[in-house]
Formats: sequence, structure tokens, C-alpha cells
Amino acid sequence: MKSTAISALHVETVKQSRIDQVDFDNLDFGKVFTDHMFVCEYKNGSWQTPTIKPYQSISLDPSASVFHYGQAVFEGMKAYKDAEGQILMFRPEDNLDRINKSAKRMAIPEFPKEYFFEGLEALLKLDTDWIKSGAGNSLYIRPFVIATEAGVRASAAQEYMFFIICSPAQSYYGGEVRVKIEEHFSRAASGGVGYAKAAGNYGGQFYPTQLAAKEGFQQIIWTDAKNHEYVEEAGTMNLFFRINDTLVTGPTSDTILDGITRKSLIELARHNNITIEERPVKVTELVEAAKNGSLKEMFGAGTAAVINPIKGFGFRDERFELEDVPNSYASLFKKQLTDIQYNLDADPFEWRYLVK
Amino acid sequence: MKSTAISALHVETVKQSRIDQVDFDNLDFGKVFTDHMFVCEYKNGSWQTPTIKPYQSISLDPSASVFHYGQAVFEGMKAYKDAEGQILMFRPEDNLDRINKSAKRMAIPEFPKEYFFEGLEALLKLDTDWIKSGAGNSLYIRPFVIATEAGVRASAAQEYMFFIICSPAQSYYGGEVRVKIEEHFSRAASGGVGYAKAAGNYGGQFYPTQLAAKEGFQQIIWTDAKNHEYVEEAGTMNLFFRINDTLVTGPTSDTILDGITRKSLIELARHNNITIEERPVKVTELVEAAKNGSLKEMFGAGTAAVINPIKGFGFRDERFELEDVPNSYASLFKKQLTDIQYNLDADPFEWRYLVK
Ligand SMILES: Cc1ncc(COP(=O)(O)O)c(C=O)c1O
Ligand SMILES: Cc1ncc(COP(=O)(O)O)c(C=O)c1O
Repeated sequence: MKSTAISALHVETVKQSRIDQVDFDNLDFGKVFTDHMFVCEYKNGSWQTPTIKPYQSISLDPSASVFHYGQAVFEGMKAYKDAEGQILMFRPEDNLDRINKSAKRMAIPEFPKEYFFEGLEALLKLDTDWIKSGAGNSLYIRPFVIATEAGVRASAAQEYMFFIICSPAQSYYGGEVRVKIEEHFSRAASGGVGYAKAAGNYGGQFYPTQLAAKEGFQQIIWTDAKNHEYVEEAGTMNLFFRINDTLVTGPTSDTILDGITRKSLIELARHNNITIEERPVKVTELVEAAKNGSLKEMFGAGTAAVINPIKGFGFRDERFELEDVPNSYASLFKKQLTDIQYNLDADPFEWRYLVK
Repeated sequence: MKSTAISALHVETVKQSRIDQVDFDNLDFGKVFTDHMFVCEYKNGSWQTPTIKPYQSISLDPSASVFHYGQAVFEGMKAYKDAEGQILMFRPEDNLDRINKSAKRMAIPEFPKEYFFEGLEALLKLDTDWIKSGAGNSLYIRPFVIATEAGVRASAAQEYMFFIICSPAQSYYGGEVRVKIEEHFSRAASGGVGYAKAAGNYGGQFYPTQLAAKEGFQQIIWTDAKNHEYVEEAGTMNLFFRINDTLVTGPTSDTILDGITRKSLIELARHNNITIEERPVKVTELVEAAKNGSLKEMFGAGTAAVINPIKGFGFRDERFELEDVPNSYASLFKKQLTDIQYNLDADPFEWRYLVK
């Protein structure tokens, strides 16, 4: 059933595709965008006609709220193509729910579900040639909302724009990943916006991450801002630890992003009869486990990186390296997850979403 | 002495001023901007030719970093005009130092001092007619930097733009201000970006402030994110409390903006032989002082609002109202500060900056 709102989607297509200029075997993550984008404006108290139009620059007043007060939230999701050329997504309703949860915390109006799916599916079908089948290939989808109202009074804007832009992707990370357990800087305050995919949460991580990079770490493991006693998450990944044969991950809270990959892995673990513990993880517990050899694996989980094995970590002046394990959980989960995503295996959890 | 860089300032003026359309007696804060703006781009590792041009929209790629990762910092300062038509500023070097401190924390390149002053002074002189003399009138100046590089990889951008835009202002707040002492939400994590004027710090306050507004409060008093035990600051103001005849303000830290008004008031207090204590202030101490009558005054201090008396506060289920006091510190400081700012009195501290 199509509501009035849905049928109002306005589509303007490109005259000439840019796809021939793209080298799909050498993609730089997030640098190239497809021919079209989805845009919807909010003003006078409601979302206006959703539109698909050629990917193009945005023109904003220099006083637009997003530039000054960071009222901006986003999502990260992917579309896959199977051998039959069908377009698939992974639990996309959860991304919509999450962007609306983020929006609420940032005083941004929530976006209607019908507009989102109608726009997103039309966009994927229009730019279907940009989605390549084959292992690791995907279309990274970036929905985001920004406050566009002009004026520098520090209060919630009355005007916004919701966008979806898409970028063809191979895999996000290259090389071995070593992480630093951070004790000085913090990512999120309890009572703050850490659980939201709010723009400012990311910009605040760059400087500490640059300092960590100088010490040879690719990422930071954030710890709680109160006492730096518990591990929280990495920059754009939730964290999993395998201690002997038990899988452990921290609980969600208002300082941690409730990752869709994370919660899928928890279900997959149960499905595989792997003991999974969702509980606070102390830094000292990890250090201890690394020392006594019970820490078998560490990995990050997130849409962009899928599953990212962590080779070692640094804590204060100590460095710990993990041995490679045969039959790692990381590779098991990665295979099971991507087999579902790429329609290579059954989907007992009903996570797949077929774009018809 | 002018360096090469300085003399490179490129100026393009408007054909027709918009000033005749502006009702200077009924200004909405931060809504109207002067004819010109200052812009300087950062790319290839350096700041490019600084430019003054007609105030106009900015065109950015939808993937520009500021929209996604909130790499954005700003300042708030004012220019005043005295009876002789001279343009004055208040401690502007401190704003430059602070925007560069904010920039560093947000992994944004620092902005050169010569560019800043050359550009700012030229802008003020060009738009001098927008600066009105007379009590309360000023030109609100908003320098800001945004990350403009296209691409959605979550890391520090390689391209930025530094702007200065200006808005004629009367006074910021109207009406009586009552504040809520917040115990659930937080503004800043220790180890985070709270001490920086980073865009995301402000967007994160809007939702809690809207909730407080429903309870009848115009502003929130933030408390520490660890235990909500100590008062920190308000949305855009540092806080002062008069307990009997002693003035008390919280210390600066990495969760509090080091306000220029705040530090000027501390000096003014000493100058007036008022006992000033810069020390952690417990919420319970304030509640106690309100109950036993020793809390004589509360006020916020910041560039936009100057000094903003606080009439009452709410904590949990209790509401406290302050009686008006004769010869309040708030009005004493406001007079002394604005007399210096408007060139109505001597400036023993050398805070005034004359634009020649
Ligand atoms: C801070 C943070 N943590 C975790 C994740 C992983 O979440 P998801 O699995 O939903 O992509 C992301 C990325 O979305 C993130 O930005
Ligand atoms: C969070 C915050 N605190 C305090 C202040 C007051 O600082 P200043 O006196 O330098 O304007 C401001 C405004 O600049 C602010 O944004």
C-alpha cells in the first residue's frame, strides 16, 4: 500500500552517468559517489517532498546551524548484489530506527519510515550498476541529516535536510590492526550523546587517534570517561574478546553505539553454541588474560569493516600481541555473516532485505 | 610591518549594501549578517589567500566532512563603537588563541594570527556602518572553521575553510532567567572536547534544554558527568555565585569553556576588593546556601549575554528563588565591563583593542 507521501517521490535523473570513470578494482573508501542522491527538506514543521536528483553540491548559508552547533546525525549501511543480480540489504529497519534515535537526542525531527524506504529503494535501483557482486564488494550507504537553518542563535534549528548518498566499496581496512587502550582522552560522557551517531562524536576522536597513530596504533579502544576502568568500543566498531572459548562483549549503554553487527554476532554466537557474555569488561581483565594466554582473540565489528581482527594492543607502557588461532571466531562469524549478506546461505534470522 | 601573507588579503566588495533593509531597533539575535564575510581555505597543507567577499552561500559536497564528523569549531566575540565612531574589540587575541586551542583538539589546523587580524580589521572597517554606537549595541562576530574535504572516511580532513561572519546585535536575553541543575544529561566528559568551542558540544545540549524548558527553565546548569556533584557551566555562559559577599566560580578544566568574560570578571572582582574564590562548587552547597539565605546572587557570564542575572533555579523537585539585592555584583560588573568595552571609562587592564 502506497500512501500519498510515498507516491510523491520526485525523481530527476542524470543526463550522463559517471560510472565509466570509476575503477571498481581500486576504490578508495568513501571517495566516489554514485550518480544520484536522495534529499528531503524539513521546514514549516514537516518533511517536504522527497526527491532523488543527480549527486551535486549543497548550497548553505554560512550561518547554517550544522556549521556552528553540530546538529547532525548519520548512518552507515550497505547494499549487496547476489549472483542473480538481486539487490540486498542487511537489517535496514534498524538503521532507520537508529538514525531516528540519534536524531531525537540531537533535537532533530525524526524521519518517516515510508519516505526512507521508498527513497532508498528507488535510489538503489536507479544506481544498480554501481553495486557490484562478488566477495567484499558492496555499496556503502550513508543516510545523514543536517540542520540547515540560517542564524547563529544556539538553539535547535527549524530547518533540516535528510540525505542518502552512496559510495561503491571494497573492504574498509587493510593491514594488521593494533589498538591502544586509551586512559587519558574520552569518547563519550554518561548522560551525553555517545550512543547516538552524532557527527561530533567522530570529530572528537581524530586528535587522540592521531596521537595513538604516532605510537604505532591504528585505532583506539575507548574506556569509560569516569575512571577508564572498563573498555567501551573502538572508533567505528564494537569490540569482542574471546577468552578461552567464551566470547565477551561490553553491554550497550548511553556511551556506546548499539551496533547492528554487534547484536547480529551475539545471535550468531548463540546459534553456533558459543558461550557469549554481554557484561562490563575491565581493562585489567584483558591485560590479565593477555598475560596468562587465555585471551585468544579480539576483534571489532561494524558495518564498514564487517569483522576486523585485532592483532595486538597497547596499555600504558606494555604491548601485547595475540597469536593467530586456527578456526578463529572472527573468521567463522565473518563467513556466516557475509554469506547471509550476499545471499550465499540460508537466512534463519530474517536479516536480509530484498530490494524488489 | 606587513608580511607577504598579510598584504595578500584579497577584497571583493558588494555592489549594493543591504543595510537599508535592516531595522536596527528590532534585531533578532544572529539572524541578519553584514554585507561582507572573511573566508580562507586550507588545502595542500596550508592556508591559502585570505579573502573578503560579499556575504554569500557556501557550496559543499554532500560528503564534506563537517556534515558527517563534526570537525567544526567557532568563536563568539563583539565589536563596539564609541561616541567618536571608533571601532573597539574586547581581548580579541584571546578569541584567536581559543579557536586555535579548540582547533587542535578537533584535529583542525591552527589559523595564523596575521591572517586573522588583518582579515577581521579589514572586515570591520568595510562594514563599519553596521556597528551602531549606544548602550547594548554591538556587532556580534562569529569566526568559525569547518572541515570541507569530500569523502566519508572517518578521519581528519585535509581541507578546511575559516570564516568570519558578523551580525548586528542588541542584547541577547530577554526576561527573567531560571535554570535547572541537570543530573541526568551531561554536557562534557572529562578527557573529551568540553573545553573546546566545538560544534557538537552545542547540538548535544538542545534536547535536554528543550526538556528543561517544558519545566519552565530557560537554561540548564550542567554538572560533572561523573557524579553530577559539582556545577560546571550553562549552555553558553560561565557561572558565578555570590555567597554572602564572596564571589564563587568553578575552576576551568577540560570540561568547561575557559570564558573570556569569566576571567575578566575575576580580575574585576579583585580590582573591586571583592573576595573571589575559584574552586569546585557543589550542588549541595548551592542548595544549602539558597535555603539559609546566604546565596545572594547567581549570574551567567559570556560574550553574547554579557552578564545574565539568574532569578532562580530548580534542583530535583525543589525550586529556589533569589530575592533582588540592592547594589548587586551583577550590575556592578556589567557596568564596569561595558564601560570598558564601549570606551566610556579607563581601561586599566588593557583589554580594549582599537581598530585603526
Ligand atoms: C561508534 C561506533 N561503534 C560501533 C559501530 C558499529 O555499528 P554497526 O555494526 O551498526 O555498523 C559504528 C558504526 O556504525 C560506530 O560508529
Ligand atoms: C560553553 C560556553 N561557556 C562559556 C562561554 C562564555 O565565554 P566567553 O566569555 O569567552 O564568551 C561560552 C561562550 O563563548 C560558551 O560557549
